[in-house]
Amino acid sequence: MTVNILFAAKPDRWADYETPLRTAFARAGIDADLRTDFAPEEVDYIIYAPNGPLSDFSPYTRCKAVLSLWAGVEGIITNTTLTQPMARMVDTGLERGMVEWVTGHTLRHHLSIDQHIHGQDGIWRPGHVPPLAADRPVTVLGLGALGRACGLALTSLGFPVTGWSRTQKSIPGIRCLAGDAGLTSALSGAEILILLLPRTPATDNIMTAERFALLGAEACVLNPGRGALIDDAALIAALDAGQLGHATLDVFRVEPLPPAHAFWAHPKITVTPHIASETRPDTASTVIAENIRRGEAGQPFLHLVNRAQGY
Amino acid sequence: MTVNILFAAKPDRWADYETPLRTAFARAGIDADLRTDFAPEEVDYIIYAPNGPLSDFSPYTRCKAVLSLWAGVEGIITNTTLTQPMARMVDTGLERGMVEWVTGHTLRHHLSIDQHIHGQDGIWRPGHVPPLAADRPVTVLGLGALGRACGLALTSLGFPVTGWSRTQKSIPGIRCLAGDAGLTSALSGAEILILLLPRTPATDNIMTAERFALLGAEACVLNPGRGALIDDAALIAALDAGQLGHATLDVFRVEPLPPAHAFWAHPKITVTPHIASETRPDTASTVIAENIRRGEAGQPFLHLVNRAQGY
Repeated sequence: MTVNILFAAKPDRWADYETPLRTAFARAGIDADLRTDFAPEEVDYIIYAPNGPLSDFSPYTRCKAVLSLWAGVEGIITNTTLTQPMARMVDTGLERGMVEWVTGHTLRHHLSIDQHIHGQDGIWRPGHVPPLAADRPVTVLGLGALGRACGLALTSLGFPVTGWSRTQKSIPGIRCLAGDAGLTSALSGAEILILLLPRTPATDNIMTAERFALLGAEACVLNPGRGALIDDAALIAALDAGQLGHATLDVFRVEPLPPAHAFWAHPKITVTPHIASETRPDTASTVIAENIRRGEAGQPFLHLVNRAQGY
Repeated sequence: MTVNILFAAKPDRWADYETPLRTAFARAGIDADLRTDFAPEEVDYIIYAPNGPLSDFSPYTRCKAVLSLWAGVEGIITNTTLTQPMARMVDTGLERGMVEWVTGHTLRHHLSIDQHIHGQDGIWRPGHVPPLAADRPVTVLGLGALGRACGLALTSLGFPVTGWSRTQKSIPGIRCLAGDAGLTSALSGAEILILLLPRTPATDNIMTAERFALLGAEACVLNPGRGALIDDAALIAALDAGQLGHATLDVFRVEPLPPAHAFWAHPKITVTPHIASETRPDTASTVIAENIRRGEAGQPFLHLVNRAQGY
């Protein structure tokens, strides 16, 4: 039986996704009618992005599931018209991209690569050899799929990794902490801090001045998670005071980051334009097809959002 | 019985090494008399660095082995007064430092991090997401301890790694090639090239204009191995022609690299001052002590240099 699938992301994504989705549906044996418009009452599944055209889910009375193209769902979790089951994107391509961005910027700061890029002045400065990764404590806040994968990659390079999450996790090779007391321990003395928490009321502004002050001297902060995790003014104050060494930020409270924002011109901040992890059409389409196959076979959906937790 | 051990490196290294060596000898149960001067005929072992005070080994008639603090031995392999067994340094600290430098600069080029460091101009440039590591072929020339460790670290990050060595090797997860035809295959289409060959007559100027031309468009070259592996003029010509994208060089034919050298001012070259791998006194001292323990117990030395091969 034909399955009616509505693609409800920004129009420019249709060109990227149409062929990968059709290929993935064919591979999964799904007889799909995939379109960017349907009469709402005829739609079986919605492939969704929060910045797309759809905001009122109430007319989609037959819809069995909303399948997000995004890993972060804070933009729709509060939408009261959304009563259907909803799945986050958990894309292996997105996860690999995040691991590469996080590992690359961690090593950049660990090795002081910026000093070499900026310092091509003909003066040979031997002797300042960085410590080994084994002597550079790294802390990851958030131990979901992305935090876990990044922590394991850094562990395999020799960094001692501490991970923190709301509920206690157990991951071989990573010192896992939880709760408020655990957060203080996780931050204390960390030389590189990586923020990979979801955005929820409990994580909003989680990085306050007091918590930045717990980090090791001249620590570096990487934020590829969510802009709202950081108290922006506290971050700038800690950088200006020399307490923090650098911040590399990929996500912001307002995106695109406005040209006049203080982050752009700050000598100790690197802005990257929300590229740390991007859903990749080929791998994401396989995830979408698998969930539709499960729905049609009466099996439980993967990666369902828990509305009570907010992610 | 007391073992007489001469420390023959640059005087400033004595401060770094004295305590770690004494600690390592005590742990290995060696009754060592460690000094920076001895009557030559009384010396049992020489701890040696090529830039130190010792160049004539002939008076050291009782010496059982020369134990180098350096991984590279081209500076002494041609010394005809050296007839004693000689061991290279194979230091886990040095190997880890090399893996960190190579992985950090590989990811730096893979993620185009320089563009972000230089481009903090307030203009949000989304959409240019780098390929995944899985789509970025990397080639390592040289599959000794360092090349192997770097290749495996890059493999674990998802890069497809090709390794080349003079004699055929077999390393799980790495496409291993050898010989002249293998070199052409190994270089063809590589987007990041890492040079970790020893310096021998056969590897001198191994990277010619013809071989640079085999690499993928705008490939990046990392040289943490030996300066003489590269034909400097060919490298600059390939960069200027836009054929290569960037070169990050840690080693040079003359060190310190002279201030007027073209490498310093070239916009597509990053110079780092021979820091990619540095022997670490703690781990190196353990290696030295183990070889002396072996010598005293009549067991074969580790990491002996093969003079016919030149390394």
